[in-house]
Amino acid sequence: MMSRKIALSSGTGTLEGGLNKMIIGTLIGMAACSFSVGAEEAQMTRLSKITVSAEHLPAYRDALAEEVRASMDLEPGVLSLYAVFDKEDPTRLTILEIYASRQAYEQHVKSPHFIRYKHGTLHMVTSLELVDVDPLLPALKIK
Amino acid sequence: MMSRKIALSSGTGTLEGGLNKMIIGTLIGMAACSFSVGAEEAQMTRLSKITVSAEHLPAYRDALAEEVRASMDLEPGVLSLYAVFDKEDPTRLTILEIYASRQAYEQHVKSPHFIRYKHGTLHMVTSLELVDVDPLLPALKIK
Repeated sequence: MMSRKIALSSGTGTLEGGLNKMIIGTLIGMAACSFSVGAEEAQMTRLSKITVSAEHLPAYRDALAEEVRASMDLEPGVLSLYAVFDKEDPTRLTILEIYASRQAYEQHVKSPHFIRYKHGTLHMVTSLELVDVDPLLPALKIK
Repeated sequence: MMSRKIALSSGTGTLEGGLNKMIIGTLIGMAACSFSVGAEEAQMTRLSKITVSAEHLPAYRDALAEEVRASMDLEPGVLSLYAVFDKEDPTRLTILEIYASRQAYEQHVKSPHFIRYKHGTLHMVTSLELVDVDPLLPALKIK
């Protein structure tokens, strides 16, 4: 009786354990799924912190302006590439990069205008730091 | 006849010269005026680089979100306050601040919502660096 009870209890325990594991598994699966969908569709935001050699600054500005205009005009997934130069030291700049998704970013770096900019300015850039960031209010705009 | 012609010509010359001077004067005046208006109305752009103590981070985020929403809703001259938190260290944040003019900025820092935010978060902020910047393309937006 005792052993049967133990066996039953053990059996029930196993069944419950199995159900719990299924439920947990399902929840993990759902979470992973929604995370995966979220990760694909979530906006991707980054600060690029760049230093340019002073001698190349005018040419760099022209190349960047051309690249930003082309990206904004031709790529719906490029939401902004807002570049600002430090007033005290204009060889230092920061670009707030906002992409509709990681996929949009990956398309962007394959675009002819990005490749032209990247190759054309490699020798002008003395440092580049890419900082992944989370926006406080992702839907905020510039008026 | 000759002298009269000369006199006339001279007179005309003087008249033309006077007109030219008036036109030049008017153009200089207009240029000066538009420059002066431009200087007053030029967009003011800044990066605020802030560090917040980890223990206060959730409260700081709430206070900042409230302040940004109020500023964007109530102040036409606040063009954006796009705040981003470093993913690697979310106690570090950067705000891209764009004001329609210096006057708009000066009004902003006197607004009740800014004063509430500033006073309410002073003890949460461990460092603050204000970097004046020049935008590459001032009219660029976020889609």
